[in-house]
Amino acid sequence: MLADADRETKQVATGNLIVLTGPSGVGKGTIVAQLFERMPDLRRSVSMTTRPQRPGEIEGHSYFFVERPFFKSKIKSGELLEWAEFAGHLYGTPKEYVDKELMAGFDVILEIEVIGARLVKELHPDAVMIFIAPPSFEELERRLRGRATETPEKIEMRLAKAKQELQEKNVFHYEVVNDNLDAAINNLEHIVYAERLRIRKQVSQ
Amino acid sequence: MLADADRETKQVATGNLIVLTGPSGVGKGTIVAQLFERMPDLRRSVSMTTRPQRPGEIEGHSYFFVERPFFKSKIKSGELLEWAEFAGHLYGTPKEYVDKELMAGFDVILEIEVIGARLVKELHPDAVMIFIAPPSFEELERRLRGRATETPEKIEMRLAKAKQELQEKNVFHYEVVNDNLDAAINNLEHIVYAERLRIRKQVSQ
Repeated sequence: MLADADRETKQVATGNLIVLTGPSGVGKGTIVAQLFERMPDLRRSVSMTTRPQRPGEIEGHSYFFVERPFFKSKIKSGELLEWAEFAGHLYGTPKEYVDKELMAGFDVILEIEVIGARLVKELHPDAVMIFIAPPSFEELERRLRGRATETPEKIEMRLAKAKQELQEKNVFHYEVVNDNLDAAINNLEHIVYAERLRIRKQVSQ
Repeated sequence: MLADADRETKQVATGNLIVLTGPSGVGKGTIVAQLFERMPDLRRSVSMTTRPQRPGEIEGHSYFFVERPFFKSKIKSGELLEWAEFAGHLYGTPKEYVDKELMAGFDVILEIEVIGARLVKELHPDAVMIFIAPPSFEELERRLRGRATETPEKIEMRLAKAKQELQEKNVFHYEVVNDNLDAAINNLEHIVYAERLRIRKQVSQ
């Protein structure tokens, strides 16, 4: 029967690519980490970066740590789904892992920069685009200034970038406000489950 | 701030119109009743019908029971959001209640016929369209034949209609398969919550 065949194609054969982004300081790292604890069937894409490995970070889990020429060769050969330069380092998403997991029927979460998110949407028009927003711009400012590790100049830069990003959220399908961590994770869970029930059209929305 | 202003417009000022439909026999009545128990903040639209009141049904709760000329006058004056004739009786959704509750910020559930659902989508392009599907056509047939109250001819008619409806589900955004009542209700709940987080575009999708 047509209805069942369709359903299988979507719900069993292919997972959803879920793009999670938001301004820096909004807490998306914490949210994503807890989402994976709640939903162990989700797959997390591991990014490639030219940034030096920090203590505690695990190669192949936190990131794939590579040299700049290697990263550039991956861009050239089209093996990255998206990439962006950030604070002097390159960050990108290897395509192969994402495609393999999607084909195996798993939902894959990409936690990336807003600019990279836009690139992914162009390549994967079916990607589920989620924007994590701060309760207010003032609250974001407070959180960023609370980071003792950064210079005032860097914080100003991040704030200016965040302001712009907040205005461009119309690229996204969902907005999850991170005013309460637990509520934000619940909301992400609702989105992930609901998107598994979406009827995908031939023409992307 | 733009982001917050947007969010308020959508999430506080206007609720979502959620259209729930599916072939007869699929169990949508039971599902909706339990969904309302779980989510008391949902609003249920009460339909108007020319069908005679049955024992146990409450005027203004189960339906608004009206005479055919009155119903026809409501069609003419454009006071119905959708209407359809079914088994010799008219059924329709009064617009006023729906609009009032949406404007007050409540999500309104319409449990209606597939044909009526299509009409609603034309008038409310932002409506969330959910199709309740049977686990298989065979299972739907088994459920319908199990209804002792109907003639074999009526059941054949319902089955032919269901077959057609299942093929037209591309009008819908979501498909919820009712193979397990509890899972189906969980899934509806996910959809309702997720849709509250949707960023509505100026141009409807």
